[in-house]
Amino acid sequence: MMMAFATVIPCSSSTSSHLYFPRKRPNFRNQQQTFRCSSSLSTPSSTSSKQIQFDLKTYWITLIAEINHKLEEAIPIKYPEQIYESMRYSVLAKGAKRAPPVMCIASAELFGIPRRAAFPTACALEMVHAASLIHDDLPCMDDDISRRGRPTNHAIFGEDMAILAGDALFPLGFQHIVTNTPSDLVPESRILRVIAEFARAVGSTGMAAGQFLDLTNGGENSVEFVQEKKFGEMAECSAACGGLLAGAEDDEVARLRRYGRAVGVLYQVVDDVLEAKMKREKGEEGKRRGKTSYVGVYGVDRALEMVDELRVKAKRELDGFEKYGERVAPLYSFVDYAVERGFVVVGDQNDDGGILAADQNDCMAAL
Amino acid sequence: MMMAFATVIPCSSSTSSHLYFPRKRPNFRNQQQTFRCSSSLSTPSSTSSKQIQFDLKTYWITLIAEINHKLEEAIPIKYPEQIYESMRYSVLAKGAKRAPPVMCIASAELFGIPRRAAFPTACALEMVHAASLIHDDLPCMDDDISRRGRPTNHAIFGEDMAILAGDALFPLGFQHIVTNTPSDLVPESRILRVIAEFARAVGSTGMAAGQFLDLTNGGENSVEFVQEKKFGEMAECSAACGGLLAGAEDDEVARLRRYGRAVGVLYQVVDDVLEAKMKREKGEEGKRRGKTSYVGVYGVDRALEMVDELRVKAKRELDGFEKYGERVAPLYSFVDYAVERGFVVVGDQNDDGGILAADQNDCMAAL
Repeated sequence: MMMAFATVIPCSSSTSSHLYFPRKRPNFRNQQQTFRCSSSLSTPSSTSSKQIQFDLKTYWITLIAEINHKLEEAIPIKYPEQIYESMRYSVLAKGAKRAPPVMCIASAELFGIPRRAAFPTACALEMVHAASLIHDDLPCMDDDISRRGRPTNHAIFGEDMAILAGDALFPLGFQHIVTNTPSDLVPESRILRVIAEFARAVGSTGMAAGQFLDLTNGGENSVEFVQEKKFGEMAECSAACGGLLAGAEDDEVARLRRYGRAVGVLYQVVDDVLEAKMKREKGEEGKRRGKTSYVGVYGVDRALEMVDELRVKAKRELDGFEKYGERVAPLYSFVDYAVERGFVVVGDQNDDGGILAADQNDCMAAL
Repeated sequence: MMMAFATVIPCSSSTSSHLYFPRKRPNFRNQQQTFRCSSSLSTPSSTSSKQIQFDLKTYWITLIAEINHKLEEAIPIKYPEQIYESMRYSVLAKGAKRAPPVMCIASAELFGIPRRAAFPTACALEMVHAASLIHDDLPCMDDDISRRGRPTNHAIFGEDMAILAGDALFPLGFQHIVTNTPSDLVPESRILRVIAEFARAVGSTGMAAGQFLDLTNGGENSVEFVQEKKFGEMAECSAACGGLLAGAEDDEVARLRRYGRAVGVLYQVVDDVLEAKMKREKGEEGKRRGKTSYVGVYGVDRALEMVDELRVKAKRELDGFEKYGERVAPLYSFVDYAVERGFVVVGDQNDDGGILAADQNDCMAAL
């Protein structure tokens, strides 16, 4: 199950993303989009026509550095070394975008809880994400030899070790949450809800179902259903866990859940469109199977409409968080980033190692 | 990683196992063993020379029926059906002995907590046990086509589905504990400790390490180390979780941990001896690799001494639980059962489908 956020890190040039609330359904083909700024936004500078500046790039890159450091500490090499090396190869891959943990932390911070409360869960998201990608790439699954521009785990360590590395990363994620979440900030009841959420997301109704659908070319399901299972679960889990850690109300967690799912699918549909453009330019076929590619089923035009719809849908969920003021800004800007890739994404590669999105102008031109 | 308790269920003829405490290091070749009964045993009938009657077979079979019923409920067939069928094929295998969950429940009951407090964890043990066996059997791992006398999971459902079934069973185990453990009996803090214990047992320092050692023929390690990793982890986890659920003191959990580990290895060494005898009679070679077989490394005589030592070691740990009176009886009798297979084990098969142990006389004769 290749999921949303499986691509690789952003790291150069232009910076702040200008965040507004939607005035009308935006035409994302326009680079200068207009949004309505909610008058209820509780920041001092907020007015009905004022924009909020939010520097997503700095926020994201700062968090990536912290997450990478904590992941490095969380998976030290010890006996048996070969398993740990295999685990580290995938989890500590250079240039990983860390979108799931960043979304988790942003969701937790929305409710005012310090980010250190969310780091263990954030790292665990990367562990289970890596585990599922390692297993998905196996010869009997998607049979991928390359991910993020370098050999897949089994191509380096062998199939047996790749299976073991995945099998070890899943429980390590759970263990990391239980052992490292600060008890002074997060009560045990919340940690248990996070554990249950993780289990749901990676299990037989979540990502495992997504991979099954991929293997069976979607079965009898609509492309929408397949996309949500395959690309929405990880982002849904990431956003929901942030809320759960912070003790958000049930309806707020539900809202984060829908938001995350929409952003996860949105991200992937844009990737599909960009990849389709790249393949077309090269005269190649897209490699994703049938119903896991919206572009493959309905074509680029309908995929672009879907991008539009998902962007609106995701932001609509965030409207319920206006009372939290500027703290909602990162979540809004993830939505825009998913579409615009507003700062240059150096090393943002597809599975063949090709650059997927260069900068905003290129992205928009692609669409 | 084939583990202790991977064999199949006992179900006929003779019944009660006579439980004593050791008077001297028993010679397990004798069918009539003598044990010292601790004078501090707090049962009304207890004296320094009196034996406790405990009907292990009825206890075990009653629990198996309950566990099977609960597992059946825990994994209903739903969409995507093929994953659930694959999961059920391995977890609900007819005649499974359910040794890990039974040991977990016996450990919990030792401290007087109702067994319903332990059933979710007990079922979860079977789920993760089945998951690890499914992955261990894969062609790139142990390449087994038969387990418990019938085709392995991947032989029926394909490698891809077998990997997915395992990947789904691991988190289902965690989810089942969190969702179903009765909150009126088990505080959240204990559930978190159980989650951490599960994660440790199946992870990169536990069963995954055991399977790694199997794949690498033990590496530089002693056969004792390999045996403990490969066969002791599941039993250690089972016994420890029972204590954790019941709120046992740390030293008591540590004692259960050592007890479980010893019984797990003991069980497997006896299986090795029995299998060696069977293979020798057939003029075949044992199939287990180098250092994962004590018999293979040191021969039958040293393996028999080890059986003796492990039996003593396991019971020594139980001596610390004498204050709990007759409730310790099931745990003692597991030790004896591991050696004696004191009631006929119908369908207790090795991986090739052969009957591994017929009845006590045959077992002892084998040794």
